[in-house]
Amino acid sequence: MYTKYKPELDYSYTLGVFPTLELVKNQPDEIIEIFIHSSAENSDGVKQITDICRQKHILFNVNDKQIARLSLKENVHAIAVFNKYDSKLDQQANHLVLVNPSDMGNLGTIMRNMVSFDMFNLAMIIPAADIFNPRAVRASMGAMFMVNFAYFSSFEEYREKFGGHNFYPFMLDGKEELSEVKLQSPYGLVFGNESSGLDASYQDIGTSVFIKQSKNTDSLNLGISTGVALYESYS
Amino acid sequence: MYTKYKPELDYSYTLGVFPTLELVKNQPDEIIEIFIHSSAENSDGVKQITDICRQKHILFNVNDKQIARLSLKENVHAIAVFNKYDSKLDQQANHLVLVNPSDMGNLGTIMRNMVSFDMFNLAMIIPAADIFNPRAVRASMGAMFMVNFAYFSSFEEYREKFGGHNFYPFMLDGKEELSEVKLQSPYGLVFGNESSGLDASYQDIGTSVFIKQSKNTDSLNLGISTGVALYESYS
Repeated sequence: MYTKYKPELDYSYTLGVFPTLELVKNQPDEIIEIFIHSSAENSDGVKQITDICRQKHILFNVNDKQIARLSLKENVHAIAVFNKYDSKLDQQANHLVLVNPSDMGNLGTIMRNMVSFDMFNLAMIIPAADIFNPRAVRASMGAMFMVNFAYFSSFEEYREKFGGHNFYPFMLDGKEELSEVKLQSPYGLVFGNESSGLDASYQDIGTSVFIKQSKNTDSLNLGISTGVALYESYS
Repeated sequence: MYTKYKPELDYSYTLGVFPTLELVKNQPDEIIEIFIHSSAENSDGVKQITDICRQKHILFNVNDKQIARLSLKENVHAIAVFNKYDSKLDQQANHLVLVNPSDMGNLGTIMRNMVSFDMFNLAMIIPAADIFNPRAVRASMGAMFMVNFAYFSSFEEYREKFGGHNFYPFMLDGKEELSEVKLQSPYGLVFGNESSGLDASYQDIGTSVFIKQSKNTDSLNLGISTGVALYESYS
C-alpha cells in the first residue's frame, strides 16, 4: 500500500483525473500504476484514462482503499503512481526562471499558465518548492507533464549553461515597462521569490522590467505577475 | 469570546496584520474591537495598527486566547472584529462583474488585483462567494476594504441599474481579442464562474472578448484571466 508523499521518495502521485490524464498522455513511460475509484469507473475522464492505459499497456485497477489513503482531503477519482523523472531545458527555447519559488500551489498554477501561453521551459533556482509534490502537480492540472524543468544551485550556474539567452528580470524598480519591452529570443523571464522578489544585483543581468501598477497595494502576487508577463510575451 | 465565522453573523474578522491594517485605514468606523497577539506587540505592522487605533479611538487589546480561537490554522498576530457593511457601486466608474464566483480565496486574490490596477468597483451576481468570509478578506490582503462591492440577483438586475455602461463579456469564443479591443468607459468587464464560464446568452450584452491563449490547456483560471484583463485595461 502506498502512503503519504514524501520528498525523499523516488516516486510521486497525481491526485485527480486531470493530472492523471495529462500524465498518461505526456509521460506514460514513467507510470508505475494507476488507481481508479469505483464510483467513477464510468465517468468520461476516467474512461479516457483507461482507454489510453489499454493502448499503452499501463496497469490500472479499481482500489478505493488506496485512493482514500492518498487523496488528502479532497474527492479524488483517479491516482497515478509515477517515477520522478529527469527533465532538461531546451537550449533554443525561451525560459521562465523562478528564483526561490516557495509555494507549491503557486508553482502548479504558474506551470498551468506557462502552457496556456506556449512557454514550456522552467528553470528554478534553489531553495525552491518541490515540483513533484502532489499539490504542485494537482495545481498544475497536469500541465507540469508538458513542461521541461530543471533546478540550479544558483542563478550563475543557470546562466553559465544558457549564456546565449537574454535575461529580463522582473522588478518593482525595473527600468522598462513590460508593454514597451521588445523581448529578444531566446530569453529568460526572471522572477523572484513570492515575498522578497529579486535583489538589486539582478539589475545587471539584463533589461529589468516592471509591470505598470498602482501604488495601492504592495505588489502583484507571483502568479499574476508571471501570468501577465507570459500573456504579453505570447500576444 | 468570539467564535468561528458564520455567514449569518452580522460581523466578521480580519485574520492577520495586513488586512487589519487596511481595515483601520479604510473602514475604521466599522471596527468593533481589535486583538493583538502578545508575541507581536512590538512588530512594525502591529505598531502601525495600534498607532492608528489610538488616533481614531479604536479599542484594541492583547488577547492571545481570542486570537488562537479565531485564527484557523495559521499564525496570526492581529485580528479585528468588524461590522459587515453596505457598499455601493460608483455609477460613473468602471466595474468588474463576476457572475457566480464560487471560490472565496479567488475572490480575495481578484480584489487584490483590482486594486493593483485601479479598479475599485466589484459587482457580483448570486449565487456568489461571501466577500466577508475571513478567507476572502485575508486573500485580498485587505484590498477589499478599498473596493466598492454589491451583490445582484441576476445580471439583468445589475444591468438595469447601470444601463449607461458598456459590457465586455470574457468568453473563450469571444469576438475580439483583448489586446485589440478599445474599451469604452464607463464599462463592465464581465467574467463567468470558475468552472462554467459565461453561457452563450452573454454574447448579446456587448462586445465579447477573448484572451489569446494556446490550446494546450482547458483555459486560464479566473484569477489569471481577470488579472490579465485588468492589466490591459490599466496599461
